[in-house]
Amino acid sequence: MKVLFIGDVVGSPGRHMLKEYLKKLKTKYRPDVTVVNGENAAAGKGITEKVYHEIKEAGADIVTLGNHTWDKKEIFDFIEDKDDMIRPANFPRSNPGRGITYKKVGGNTLAVISLQGRTFMPPIDCPFERADELVEEAAANTRFIFVDFHAEATSEKQAMGWYLDGRASVVVGTHTHVQTADNRVLPEGTGFITDAGMTGPYDGILGVEKEAVLHKFTTNLPTRFEVTKGREQLNGVFVSLNKQTGHAESIKRIMINEDQPFFD
Amino acid sequence: MKVLFIGDVVGSPGRHMLKEYLKKLKTKYRPDVTVVNGENAAAGKGITEKVYHEIKEAGADIVTLGNHTWDKKEIFDFIEDKDDMIRPANFPRSNPGRGITYKKVGGNTLAVISLQGRTFMPPIDCPFERADELVEEAAANTRFIFVDFHAEATSEKQAMGWYLDGRASVVVGTHTHVQTADNRVLPEGTGFITDAGMTGPYDGILGVEKEAVLHKFTTNLPTRFEVTKGREQLNGVFVSLNKQTGHAESIKRIMINEDQPFFD
Amino acid sequence: MKVLFIGDVVGSPGRHMLKEYLKKLKTKYRPDVTVVNGENAAAGKGITEKVYHEIKEAGADIVTLGNHTWDKKEIFDFIEDKDDMIRPANFPRSNPGRGITYKKVGGNTLAVISLQGRTFMPPIDCPFERADELVEEAAANTRFIFVDFHAEATSEKQAMGWYLDGRASVVVGTHTHVQTADNRVLPEGTGFITDAGMTGPYDGILGVEKEAVLHKFTTNLPTRFEVTKGREQLNGVFVSLNKQTGHAESIKRIMINEDQPFFD
Amino acid sequence: MKVLFIGDVVGSPGRHMLKEYLKKLKTKYRPDVTVVNGENAAAGKGITEKVYHEIKEAGADIVTLGNHTWDKKEIFDFIEDKDDMIRPANFPRSNPGRGITYKKVGGNTLAVISLQGRTFMPPIDCPFERADELVEEAAANTRFIFVDFHAEATSEKQAMGWYLDGRASVVVGTHTHVQTADNRVLPEGTGFITDAGMTGPYDGILGVEKEAVLHKFTTNLPTRFEVTKGREQLNGVFVSLNKQTGHAESIKRIMINEDQPFFD
Ligand SMILES: [Fe+2]
Ligand SMILES: [Fe+2]
Ligand SMILES: [Fe+2]
Ligand SMILES: [Fe+2]
Ligand SMILES: [Fe+2]
Ligand SMILES: [Fe+2]
Ligand SMILES: [Fe+2]
Ligand SMILES: [Fe+2]
Repeated sequence: MKVLFIGDVVGSPGRHMLKEYLKKLKTKYRPDVTVVNGENAAAGKGITEKVYHEIKEAGADIVTLGNHTWDKKEIFDFIEDKDDMIRPANFPRSNPGRGITYKKVGGNTLAVISLQGRTFMPPIDCPFERADELVEEAAANTRFIFVDFHAEATSEKQAMGWYLDGRASVVVGTHTHVQTADNRVLPEGTGFITDAGMTGPYDGILGVEKEAVLHKFTTNLPTRFEVTKGREQLNGVFVSLNKQTGHAESIKRIMINEDQPFFD
Repeated sequence: MKVLFIGDVVGSPGRHMLKEYLKKLKTKYRPDVTVVNGENAAAGKGITEKVYHEIKEAGADIVTLGNHTWDKKEIFDFIEDKDDMIRPANFPRSNPGRGITYKKVGGNTLAVISLQGRTFMPPIDCPFERADELVEEAAANTRFIFVDFHAEATSEKQAMGWYLDGRASVVVGTHTHVQTADNRVLPEGTGFITDAGMTGPYDGILGVEKEAVLHKFTTNLPTRFEVTKGREQLNGVFVSLNKQTGHAESIKRIMINEDQPFFD
Repeated sequence: MKVLFIGDVVGSPGRHMLKEYLKKLKTKYRPDVTVVNGENAAAGKGITEKVYHEIKEAGADIVTLGNHTWDKKEIFDFIEDKDDMIRPANFPRSNPGRGITYKKVGGNTLAVISLQGRTFMPPIDCPFERADELVEEAAANTRFIFVDFHAEATSEKQAMGWYLDGRASVVVGTHTHVQTADNRVLPEGTGFITDAGMTGPYDGILGVEKEAVLHKFTTNLPTRFEVTKGREQLNGVFVSLNKQTGHAESIKRIMINEDQPFFD
Repeated sequence: MKVLFIGDVVGSPGRHMLKEYLKKLKTKYRPDVTVVNGENAAAGKGITEKVYHEIKEAGADIVTLGNHTWDKKEIFDFIEDKDDMIRPANFPRSNPGRGITYKKVGGNTLAVISLQGRTFMPPIDCPFERADELVEEAAANTRFIFVDFHAEATSEKQAMGWYLDGRASVVVGTHTHVQTADNRVLPEGTGFITDAGMTGPYDGILGVEKEAVLHKFTTNLPTRFEVTKGREQLNGVFVSLNKQTGHAESIKRIMINEDQPFFD
């Protein structure tokens, strides 16, 4: 089982990069399942049904979300209908949507779970408790389990990696929009990276116009954040899972930008 | 001007890695100046005079600190005496110690500045304002300016990189203990990386025993954090600065661990 | 049913005030049950078995705790044995201790529930969800339900008051150590106050030596916080509940200090 | 010198209460200067020029602001013109507006200073350092110095009271929207209260519709916050300053609502 994951797609530059490179990446890596984090895909904040379809048509099998899930009002109109789009499973239980989904491919199934951290983030239900629940549920169905852990703190993300080591196939961090260089297979077989990075503008600050972010940091005045135009990047990871065990055999970083162009 | 930087050295495993690899790295890269972040060098929290000397003897020219600066009481006894050890310059002005230092090498001088972020961290003076002050002071003395920006949020760290682009030679993030993969030379010539990563245990969570960190996250009970034993890693960056302009010509990541062994 | 509640007892000055005034207050108000928050009773941080007994002997029927519950190690040795001492019920479910208790008096029963907020505090389980559970459990046993909501933010505390209006007899806030003046009976019959205040030093900052707290705020350096000596205060509330409905008929503030001496 | 202070005016209910009671309060207390915190006066968020004039016409001499200063865009058009309206003085120095103003009355002058806290709030400049500066400036002009300290944490507010004890005539906390019962004259002569409370709806949560706030706390979903309609309240304090020393002789709480009606 091979899985391609693309980190937080930001606005139209992010969608543009998906259209430009997702097919090429599939040709190169031949993933069985492609998972795309789309929490910033609609103008940097949330997702619309149109944008969801754009991401699917670009080649995503599963769309994951995060703390920006509810930023676009229309999400409430379509989230229940899309069983291939998930939001963090440890949101309050009354929230619409789901936090786990399954993708069948060949005779196999990939479970995909979304969870969100709490350190430096809003207080929601415990992601570790919810992880126990969902990994157990998933394990009843398949040995291939992919977790997108949307969190801020490196400590919490590494904690989740070690917590699920040997129980999940992969734990990929998202949310900080900066790819980390610590991709590795943990001792019990879980592929891990603290953050997969983002897909969108290359010259902004996490995808946002740098002038705006600097204005905010230096004046603390209200500032309108827009997605940056100009050069673009794509970030993600590619994981190979062992057929028998479901454990990760390798987790490779993917980074495409003007300084590090794509090679077939 | 070539600069080797080593990310947060954690406890005795971190010091051990310095002794094991700093000379080899110097032989390989031939840096003019070696800067080491030592804020976690003494048992994971702060620095003692003995540990300071150990780091210097291992080959550091300059030692930088961070939010753990004051963790060991004896720091107050020796910080004023060490002009090659700096703590974040935007700490309250009454704090002991300094936030900028200079290293002469050949006919050149490297200014080294320490600053700390405020997002998800204690409220101190504005790092951007203080950066303006110190970069101006440094620029009066040299065109080679190295900034260790000790901060949590990727947004604040990228903001500092762009803020100083063209004014500092290098902005290297520290504090999250996870190396990021976004090392690059920004358009105006500043070498940048969101985080250089840490130097110490390879199998802990940011250097701390994973069992303890997981206990904390899952129970919220008081927990004693100890530096992990076992396998070790070293993380850092190497930057080459243009003689004429002081701008970065390249910024390269260094990562040594069992999965990615050192090569001469 | 009449209930006397004493706000966070801080260190020996707080225990001294209990010994000095609890009997006098009982003579004056004739409460059926006396509840004392003891989370800071042992040197300002946590509670020991000896201190627990001191509080009980001073006249407390029930002891409530808060975010300082685990500050003294020995708490783990005796918390399970004391069924009249409760810690916030929405701590992780694996934590020792209980979050609800009952006190029988005459033919009636008072349920006492401890909950903790999450705004500006560590991320634990949802206090509103847990409140639903426990108020339902309590209501199966009695119509007299007392809630100590240990929280920082005025918004979260008022929210809990309104959330339980008509379902709990009383919601008393604790934790900020400053008594608020907004005691009132909400429209559906719940007696409410945002914070009952603290019992201990009168001239410190929340009970701590003011010099130390000012040192911390102005230097951000490590600071040892000690309970202040000198003048003392006692803060609390007295509530009368309707026999038939369990609703609050009145909630009165109690404040004793040198500027506002106790009158019989 | 007598000063009447009215806590955070929230939306039209708050302005209505000002119109209804400010004249009556002036008749009752005969203040020399009336200071009104108007940071939430325009629909709960910020202030407009029209609303500023409404507050002035209702009887305010000085208007103070807080963290909501910039919520209405048009503030940038008129803040520089109004020398009787101040925003926290420790906002970044490049921000428009001022943080100190003076009101002459008879042969005397009242200095009014606005400062904002940092605990649980955005990181701005140190309020204690800025307090030193401005109190020194004010003291060169008058012995009557009034400080509105807009802060969240009770610890930081009490710290400011003690920090300025004997140097400022009064330190009144604002921002939490709940009046505290700890009004007192500190040993060196500063009148102090942790929070003056708010002026506006009586049955909301800090002035906001309780249903909306509860929706937010229980679901964490995006929620529109509107100022509550219905019953109203007014909160504030009245301070008498000694003519010779400028020290507070008394600080009295004012609270008007249906449960505690106004008496002449
Ligand atoms: Fe994102
Ligand atoms: Fe996110
Ligand atoms: Fe560190
Ligand atoms: Fe650090
Ligand atoms: Fe307390
Ligand atoms: Fe507390
Ligand atoms: Fe306000
Ligand atoms: Fe405010």
